[in-house]
Amino acid sequence: MLISQLGEEALIEGLRDLFAATTEGVPVGIGDDAAVINGTDRQMVWTTDLLVEGVHFQRGWQTPGELGRKCLAVNLSDVAAMGAVPRYALFSIACPSDTDVDMIMEVSRGFCDLALQEQVAVIGGDTTSSPGPLVLSVTAGGIASAAAPLLRSGARSGDTILVSGYLGSAAGGLKLLIEGGAGRYQSLVEAFISPKTTSGVAQDALGAGATAMTDVSDGLASDLRHVCVQSGVGAAIDRGRLPVDPLLIEACQEYGWDADELVLAGGEDYVLLFTLPREIAAGAAAVISKKNDMPITDIGEMTSQTGIVLKCEPERECRLPDHGYDHFLKHG
Amino acid sequence: MLISQLGEEALIEGLRDLFAATTEGVPVGIGDDAAVINGTDRQMVWTTDLLVEGVHFQRGWQTPGELGRKCLAVNLSDVAAMGAVPRYALFSIACPSDTDVDMIMEVSRGFCDLALQEQVAVIGGDTTSSPGPLVLSVTAGGIASAAAPLLRSGARSGDTILVSGYLGSAAGGLKLLIEGGAGRYQSLVEAFISPKTTSGVAQDALGAGATAMTDVSDGLASDLRHVCVQSGVGAAIDRGRLPVDPLLIEACQEYGWDADELVLAGGEDYVLLFTLPREIAAGAAAVISKKNDMPITDIGEMTSQTGIVLKCEPERECRLPDHGYDHFLKHG
Repeated sequence: MLISQLGEEALIEGLRDLFAATTEGVPVGIGDDAAVINGTDRQMVWTTDLLVEGVHFQRGWQTPGELGRKCLAVNLSDVAAMGAVPRYALFSIACPSDTDVDMIMEVSRGFCDLALQEQVAVIGGDTTSSPGPLVLSVTAGGIASAAAPLLRSGARSGDTILVSGYLGSAAGGLKLLIEGGAGRYQSLVEAFISPKTTSGVAQDALGAGATAMTDVSDGLASDLRHVCVQSGVGAAIDRGRLPVDPLLIEACQEYGWDADELVLAGGEDYVLLFTLPREIAAGAAAVISKKNDMPITDIGEMTSQTGIVLKCEPERECRLPDHGYDHFLKHG
Repeated sequence: MLISQLGEEALIEGLRDLFAATTEGVPVGIGDDAAVINGTDRQMVWTTDLLVEGVHFQRGWQTPGELGRKCLAVNLSDVAAMGAVPRYALFSIACPSDTDVDMIMEVSRGFCDLALQEQVAVIGGDTTSSPGPLVLSVTAGGIASAAAPLLRSGARSGDTILVSGYLGSAAGGLKLLIEGGAGRYQSLVEAFISPKTTSGVAQDALGAGATAMTDVSDGLASDLRHVCVQSGVGAAIDRGRLPVDPLLIEACQEYGWDADELVLAGGEDYVLLFTLPREIAAGAAAVISKKNDMPITDIGEMTSQTGIVLKCEPERECRLPDHGYDHFLKHG
């Protein structure tokens, strides 16, 4: 059935019923002029992201459920990167009137499943027709779990820089999707389609005494630069230590991709980058890695000299891309 | 200059600078993974709305600044209708890469001006290119000013139903915009383009003891029905008492429009509908009207019998439209 046949009111009713399971304990969820949430003496963090068909995704790349899951996941990544625990989300959908109702409900179910898994209440949203592509807009809120959230600005010279998971895998997966053949590299595609949630790692890093944190969504070079600029320090990273899935290296060899470009400037990994005082970094990384079953890699250190220095093996030439992913610039 | 020439980072920097004026006292505004707001012991309300070019607006209908103002205003209307004081907003923009930067900045300035006027901090947002129409997504949050927000569900049989401002003016203005000639009916177009903010009226109604409140955004019939259903009561409204701008009546006569359709089912008025115990309604309405320089009209009463009865003069036939505005259905 098409949404134009079902009508907006019935669609909203279906979504309200779906998301009701997430709002237990919330004073007022979907269904009034606005949602009502309880007050908290902790600080809250809020973030928002738009995902546009033809820019961030194509319908054929993933199931509708995976798409819904991802558009919540990328917002939860931002909340987690503040050292906050995700608690609330609002989810809006713009799509043509002749969109299949089942597809929209599947997208919403994927969103809902992750919300349930992460104990996030879906408290609002909007639906509207659009003459253009499918647009998904998500806003997420969380509650700071410590006295104050963990900002990009707290890194100090000498701090160790750590990264959770692998870098560049999602960018490799995206290339496979665009070029149309994942084959034995399916796990790279998975990294793009279904980024792992990072709330656990973030909370553990916070508990360990992290001084700064951000998520790597626009590529390491770009996101680390934000930490450097906002902390007023620099960074020296070691190319040889960057965590790269061996499968990505194989794919780069097979397809002739520039591994540096993917690992240093590839977007959408949604892993965490955080800094820890040097003396506790190794011990904390081991604990966090074990607890979350995820590699936590020391990639270098913050320096007093501003700018980012990329250290490479002497026989290899490597450079730090000076850009992150820019949605408005033309991409090759 | 086009956004594709400026680049996303410079655009975001421009927006961050613009909105910085709104975030005084906010711990962290735009510029980290997420914004940080202070905790509050009061309940908070959150709402979100998508506005799509070609569905909710056309670029030629208003200045970019008016467009930006309106997309915040419609969200503040929902916050106000909960009896909460708007405090926060997040603002996302999807547009083609070849969009003029000045236009986007003008839209944002209109948004910013209303935010400053209403003391709303613009704490976040997202920008992305899109192959489709301009899409504006806004999320707004407010703090409940009383023990608890004012819901649609609190109306009781016998309560007086009141409406702030005029009904149907915005729908008339929209017809003029579509048909291409406002002439002496410019104030109807204004009602559509620049809905008045209602925070003051809402707070006064709350203070006076309102039992239920909602904003009239989909048309009186639809929005009053929500109050009836959620309160478990009915309503009897008097067609002759509905507040209609005399200019709208003239326009209906000149253009042959169905006045009932506009007044009862026209959307986008963004006025408030609230209920008050009968014994205090007249006095409170007079005070609220004077204080806010806006008509506050008694249009009928809540009834124990469910459903909505529309009372008309005996010699006139009138019926209650059973629909609100549906963005997904085809409109004439």
